[in-house]
Amino acid sequence: MTLVVYNMLARRKEKFVPLEPGRVSMYVCGPTVYDHSHVGHAKLYVAMDTIVRYLRYSGYHVRFVQNITDVGHLLDTGEDRILKGARRDQVEPMQVVERYLRSYLDDMDALNNVRPDIMPRASGHVPEQINATQTLIEKNHAYEVNGSVYFDVSSLPEYGKLSGRMVENLEEGARVPVREEKRRPEDFALWKRAAPEHIMRWSSPWSEGFPGWHIECTVMATKYLGDSFDIHGGGLENMFPHNECEIAQSEALTGNPFAKYWVLAGSLTSDGVKMSKSLGNSVTIRQSLDLYPAQVLRFFILSGHYRSPIDYSLDALEAARRGWERMMRPALVVRKRLGIPWLPEQDTCEFTPLLDEIRGRFSAAMDDDFNSPSALAVLFEFAKNVNTLLSGETQPSRSTLEAIDNLYSQLAGEVLGVYPSDTASSVDAERQALLIQLLIDTRDQARRRNDFDSADAIREQLQTIGVILEDSKDGTTWKLAQPEDNPK
Amino acid sequence: MTLVVYNMLARRKEKFVPLEPGRVSMYVCGPTVYDHSHVGHAKLYVAMDTIVRYLRYSGYHVRFVQNITDVGHLLDTGEDRILKGARRDQVEPMQVVERYLRSYLDDMDALNNVRPDIMPRASGHVPEQINATQTLIEKNHAYEVNGSVYFDVSSLPEYGKLSGRMVENLEEGARVPVREEKRRPEDFALWKRAAPEHIMRWSSPWSEGFPGWHIECTVMATKYLGDSFDIHGGGLENMFPHNECEIAQSEALTGNPFAKYWVLAGSLTSDGVKMSKSLGNSVTIRQSLDLYPAQVLRFFILSGHYRSPIDYSLDALEAARRGWERMMRPALVVRKRLGIPWLPEQDTCEFTPLLDEIRGRFSAAMDDDFNSPSALAVLFEFAKNVNTLLSGETQPSRSTLEAIDNLYSQLAGEVLGVYPSDTASSVDAERQALLIQLLIDTRDQARRRNDFDSADAIREQLQTIGVILEDSKDGTTWKLAQPEDNPK
Repeated sequence: MTLVVYNMLARRKEKFVPLEPGRVSMYVCGPTVYDHSHVGHAKLYVAMDTIVRYLRYSGYHVRFVQNITDVGHLLDTGEDRILKGARRDQVEPMQVVERYLRSYLDDMDALNNVRPDIMPRASGHVPEQINATQTLIEKNHAYEVNGSVYFDVSSLPEYGKLSGRMVENLEEGARVPVREEKRRPEDFALWKRAAPEHIMRWSSPWSEGFPGWHIECTVMATKYLGDSFDIHGGGLENMFPHNECEIAQSEALTGNPFAKYWVLAGSLTSDGVKMSKSLGNSVTIRQSLDLYPAQVLRFFILSGHYRSPIDYSLDALEAARRGWERMMRPALVVRKRLGIPWLPEQDTCEFTPLLDEIRGRFSAAMDDDFNSPSALAVLFEFAKNVNTLLSGETQPSRSTLEAIDNLYSQLAGEVLGVYPSDTASSVDAERQALLIQLLIDTRDQARRRNDFDSADAIREQLQTIGVILEDSKDGTTWKLAQPEDNPK
Repeated sequence: MTLVVYNMLARRKEKFVPLEPGRVSMYVCGPTVYDHSHVGHAKLYVAMDTIVRYLRYSGYHVRFVQNITDVGHLLDTGEDRILKGARRDQVEPMQVVERYLRSYLDDMDALNNVRPDIMPRASGHVPEQINATQTLIEKNHAYEVNGSVYFDVSSLPEYGKLSGRMVENLEEGARVPVREEKRRPEDFALWKRAAPEHIMRWSSPWSEGFPGWHIECTVMATKYLGDSFDIHGGGLENMFPHNECEIAQSEALTGNPFAKYWVLAGSLTSDGVKMSKSLGNSVTIRQSLDLYPAQVLRFFILSGHYRSPIDYSLDALEAARRGWERMMRPALVVRKRLGIPWLPEQDTCEFTPLLDEIRGRFSAAMDDDFNSPSALAVLFEFAKNVNTLLSGETQPSRSTLEAIDNLYSQLAGEVLGVYPSDTASSVDAERQALLIQLLIDTRDQARRRNDFDSADAIREQLQTIGVILEDSKDGTTWKLAQPEDNPK
């Protein structure tokens, strides 16, 4: 089995051969931390996280670097996003960064994304950005005008090789007013002279100013991964100009190829329209997590291929919840059964070969450009098999149950991140469920001996605690009371 | 009532008058993130956090800045702490920073410390440190030798005003070998030329190198708080040389007084000896939190005055647990009673004047140089009063109970941080306790009707779930089984 990756640079799937055997160096463009993250960010970073997880599961030693943009990312209006956030929240720019960086990390942790190994910040690498700009001037790839420095796109014939946009075709002028001081509209800033009111500024050989947005990724990727590295991830919408400019700067600077594989994710839409704050159709990750558990949101994201767009709606999330439960229910039953002290030591059935087959098909799916929907389909089929096994006449042995639990933990847990690990909170939740079940059983016994007073007392007291029992012909189920169940 | 603060600079208590009415600017020296934090760090940062909380409770708008040292803090051997951690963990220096910064923040969050408004990192402020060093050379307060730059202590007559250590008395040479290139042993580095193997390095006018430890605090404090600000916090053990050097650099640089109040905390000892990794007597915060809840550790720390040392031991923690429970039990009873639908609307007793008195005495204690042990004593007395009220013949009204809950939430919660807010996890914990109590009651009823089989079944099934019942003549209590209770 060989991993094949769709390389945006080649516009085709390619065999994955890392620069150094056994090791993968990977860089992903991180967020600009000036507001809460929306579910579009969840899609991008869950996709990238799952790629990292799968590479590690496949035995690679991965160094995963993802930057934090806290300076230099301008809006179309020319306004710095961080400074805009500072005005909105009426605090210092660095308080904005602190606040939303924390919010971002809390969201990523909630989504079960593994933290990158290094999270360098743009403001923490200003000297490196100045040095790189200086070198680009010396190599005749950049020029200074009025204290700002621009990259000369015409100096690099390969410019446009990622996005396929040729210099002649660019129409930046159609979107934002051409900045007069640039030689051509498609040239881009490496360093900007700061206007007098611009707070975030540093000394440089050219002016008091701040770095352009693109140069930070060139500098931080090469600083922590070397001139050439394996994978550059990000969102398709940043392929041009951001990623294109990164390549231009980096290759002009080092003379070496920059990232070998460009792995770019499709965006998240809402009713078919890209989700974005400026369009007013954005939903923050925490708003979404108020409605559904993180594992469901993650499952929803992975139910589409990372390169495709995915449409966010409550219906789609509800469908994902059902799918997730269907896939996970047998896993939870298995985990519960493993708590039973007496289990047969020997199987009469032969389930183990199936486990190897599932594992192989899961890997085949993921090896095909990280095809998570196919991988989920394999797990769905597996869930069906497990259901059949569990409802069969013979009780599966402990070792079979452990092998099943192990497969779920690895594939659904370790790789896809949608299966809860046996953490403290799940232990607490499980203990609560068992306590309630014990009370339900005790109540049943009371009813059987016609002690209806005791039975009713248990029911009522559970209700005071916020646990509602529901009797039906199939037995008694329970749910936790929601605030609306108990209006004041 | 006026806040009085022991100002280490004046060696006496002084009335607290901030530079700008209603606003407080405060800087605290943060950790060097090269290993897990130990309970000595917990003491320092809980003390500083409580000061910030009390200032905010008193109506001040506080800007709280605390740095993260990720470069330049050398050991006595001259080795950089971060690089040492990188060698130990066999990862890149910035992975060390990422790992232990996260560990530190997790610990601080667990301790219920409010995050600083800005957490600037030394590596993110290298240009500012180079600029400051350049200016100090120009002002004849520093000199360059072999690519390194040193502060000339003899250039500043006030040097030593915080620690009281005069230049003549210094004996640095007695501890570490005098570095030949310095003019005098007490001069200190602003910039160090990097040895060839030193990875963390930046260009400067003098050499490829890295900033000295002290200059980062000068630069970051003044960048985010201005040349002069109100409070500089930290640990007493860093008064010399670190804080002394900060003052020297800053005042030489700006010509303005640096921090107005120096608020320094005593250290944490273990068997009377300062806790430190190098002495092998350190306990990490997470080791301690495995034994006791964060609120107990916090209570333990606040039961001593911030300026005094405090001795850490399991006995002391156990005593703190008992104290914390005694202080908090009536608060929890009040919160529980507030859940009862029917409560009297009118009081026959007059409890409210006491609330005002308690509030006043609490503030008087905290206004006296943040005397948290006195403040806790006031809350202990209050707990006694609440106990008396709750066990009295007349049921207190809802509004009285709400006023009591409100006082606990503000003084023990908002200011001291030792009272749990009504979060989801405490709701879960409470529900669990109530479910177990319901099972204990059901078991009691079974015993009363001589149904010992049912009673034993409940006991045994609880044990399978990990809940151990303990019967005594006073009734039945329960505890959760620890891993060692159930050896495999």
